[in-house]
Amino acid sequence: MLNPARPTLADAGASAGLLAVRRHNLALVMAHLRATGARSRATIAAETGLNKATVSSLVAELVERGLVAEGETERGAVGRPSQQVDLHGGAFFTVGAEVNLGYLAVVALNLRSEVLAERWVPVAADEVGTRVALPRLATLVLEVAAELTASGSELVGVTLAVPGLVERSTGRVLGAPNLGWSQTPVVETMRTLLGDPAWPLLLDNEANLAARAEVGSPGRAGITDLVVLTGVVGVGAGVVAAGHLLRGRRGFAGEVGHLQLDPGGRRCGCGRRGCWETVVGLDALLAAAADADDPVRDPTLDVVQRLDTLTTRAAAGDPRTLDALHVTAEWVGLGAGILVNLYDPEVLVLGGYFALLGHWLAEPLTRSLPDRVFAPTRGGCRVEPSALGFTAAARGGALEAMSRIFDDPTVVATTAPVPAGAPA
Amino acid sequence: MLNPARPTLADAGASAGLLAVRRHNLALVMAHLRATGARSRATIAAETGLNKATVSSLVAELVERGLVAEGETERGAVGRPSQQVDLHGGAFFTVGAEVNLGYLAVVALNLRSEVLAERWVPVAADEVGTRVALPRLATLVLEVAAELTASGSELVGVTLAVPGLVERSTGRVLGAPNLGWSQTPVVETMRTLLGDPAWPLLLDNEANLAARAEVGSPGRAGITDLVVLTGVVGVGAGVVAAGHLLRGRRGFAGEVGHLQLDPGGRRCGCGRRGCWETVVGLDALLAAAADADDPVRDPTLDVVQRLDTLTTRAAAGDPRTLDALHVTAEWVGLGAGILVNLYDPEVLVLGGYFALLGHWLAEPLTRSLPDRVFAPTRGGCRVEPSALGFTAAARGGALEAMSRIFDDPTVVATTAPVPAGAPA
Repeated sequence: MLNPARPTLADAGASAGLLAVRRHNLALVMAHLRATGARSRATIAAETGLNKATVSSLVAELVERGLVAEGETERGAVGRPSQQVDLHGGAFFTVGAEVNLGYLAVVALNLRSEVLAERWVPVAADEVGTRVALPRLATLVLEVAAELTASGSELVGVTLAVPGLVERSTGRVLGAPNLGWSQTPVVETMRTLLGDPAWPLLLDNEANLAARAEVGSPGRAGITDLVVLTGVVGVGAGVVAAGHLLRGRRGFAGEVGHLQLDPGGRRCGCGRRGCWETVVGLDALLAAAADADDPVRDPTLDVVQRLDTLTTRAAAGDPRTLDALHVTAEWVGLGAGILVNLYDPEVLVLGGYFALLGHWLAEPLTRSLPDRVFAPTRGGCRVEPSALGFTAAARGGALEAMSRIFDDPTVVATTAPVPAGAPA
Repeated sequence: MLNPARPTLADAGASAGLLAVRRHNLALVMAHLRATGARSRATIAAETGLNKATVSSLVAELVERGLVAEGETERGAVGRPSQQVDLHGGAFFTVGAEVNLGYLAVVALNLRSEVLAERWVPVAADEVGTRVALPRLATLVLEVAAELTASGSELVGVTLAVPGLVERSTGRVLGAPNLGWSQTPVVETMRTLLGDPAWPLLLDNEANLAARAEVGSPGRAGITDLVVLTGVVGVGAGVVAAGHLLRGRRGFAGEVGHLQLDPGGRRCGCGRRGCWETVVGLDALLAAAADADDPVRDPTLDVVQRLDTLTTRAAAGDPRTLDALHVTAEWVGLGAGILVNLYDPEVLVLGGYFALLGHWLAEPLTRSLPDRVFAPTRGGCRVEPSALGFTAAARGGALEAMSRIFDDPTVVATTAPVPAGAPA
């Protein structure tokens, strides 16, 4: 049977139950402010079904904990003007930090999901190895943390993003063939590099974190089923189904890069032949688009600039570039058809390096998908380039690190004691 | 953000809130008995965290509603012996009814998920069309219903299973190419054939219902991530991820039959070429295993007997049969690799006609999967033939029809008024 276990409400009358209800209601107010933005206590009460006295008490506690701040005055049609409250933008921040083929990325967000700081550095992470890449990533995180801490904000968590098979419980990358990593204790190493911090340091798969960022990004409100195709040299998919990240039994769901779609094809980093990423990854596109000595194929140069050069050539009508994009779009379409048939998303987001190809990829893909999807009119699925590009996973990491506080606002210490007998 | 909406507990103090808590607790006791079997009120209280007086009141109401019955006496190590209670096996039943290529199936279950009646009839549903197949299915349902109603049990819901794209909200099959159905108002037609019944009549995809049955079947307790490969001439996948049926945005997730894995291959029922089902469906296996005039290829004969003939030949070492099974296993393996890479299940269940091939398919598949799955040791995924075979979807339909009562036991009328002021 599906989900036989249900939480019990039966102990809501006991003391532990009251605390649980209080925590739940604090989280409810936080989630409501996150979803809807600044509003008065009375509006929160009306919209959540909580009574006004309870909302006042909850907001007071959230203000004490530094999670909510008083804002502008709201003037309704009738009655007294009332003070708005909103998530506190300055008290806390979290950081997402990504290692990928060709770059390191760091994003810091506040409780309102506003970007407080962003770093993006072109680095050939596969060539320099963990001994260079991880210290450089740690330095970026510490720089951002120092800057924001100096302005009075407190770091409450960091989540790392890596393209590969990740074991979240141990913080190890089991395998990331394109980076040359295997059984790599990323969290352990980074913990030391970051000075053994008190805040939680977690690790997750890059595509999963990109999906988390996409589903929470502007313009995607209400979208519950979404697939992000992401990557650079390797590719992966992050899947949100019915509002939840689809992880699978061991966290390996969405490992699309190694679908064997061209069995007689090129040798892949994983040792097999003809994996999808060998035909849709950046290397395949560049090999088709340019000679070996062309700067666009130099992995030590900035990947964003190289892709910019490529789309400029395409816009100028360069036949070789257009042919290469055409072939890439065909191969992307073959796998995209599989993703849409298997996950039935509302949107297929082209993330990672695909995002930088924009309409050069999205348009042919939209045209070819109906031939590859069994459901009529490509199952209603739209194809859209990501607006987040190469910082999606880092942003998702910061969101993931923040989720602990939204799940239970009481993990943040209060500066004053909560009044005894406060209503739940 | 993921799942911003949370239910509020804030109105638990109001009357509507108390009713909601009562309903929740009734459902909790039902779910607990379903998961654990007969036990005393005291044991239920200890295991659920509900207090004893509440459990007594809840059980009394469930007995009044005919959902729970008194059973044997439980003797503990100390104290008085106490009466056990369990889900009522005789008061209510639901029915699942399936149309598929080659057969009709009907299964009736009671609240304990025990099979009260089962019908399986070989019918070439694609050849006879809806005008013959649906009346025959309705007759089977009415026969089973009459038999069980005569013994004092009450029918409370029927769910229909069809292999194809299903629109649950309207009860239409949008497309089932192998059956030759398109925009077919199955629920409307069946409702008339069943005499415009008062109980809910629903429609779902065959593979989804098969997955529901598998995840609730003996030996699969605790499994939250499972994929069922099912079908006869066409194939589909039913996916359970983190304990929930994965439906996708429009209910089209798991449409694996039309993955284009053999682009230059045979024409498919959907009009495309080389869909997975053209190489792994029953027709492909039989075409390779036998000449056109061989009785195993006669679609008007019993498909179970035909498959039995085939495996008998394989066991006798017939080279042509073994070759055909080998080729089928290779093609199944290609798609199975995609399923495991994308969904990361704990078990890949071979359902539908694949179940009847047993180890002839499961063993080569288990051997080939490590080459096709990126995660080490095939992601830990096991391959197992289904024990439910061709009745899985009908069983899943009956479970689905029963879920309404487990979700809210108050949908079943009580024979006596619930005492006012009963504790929640």
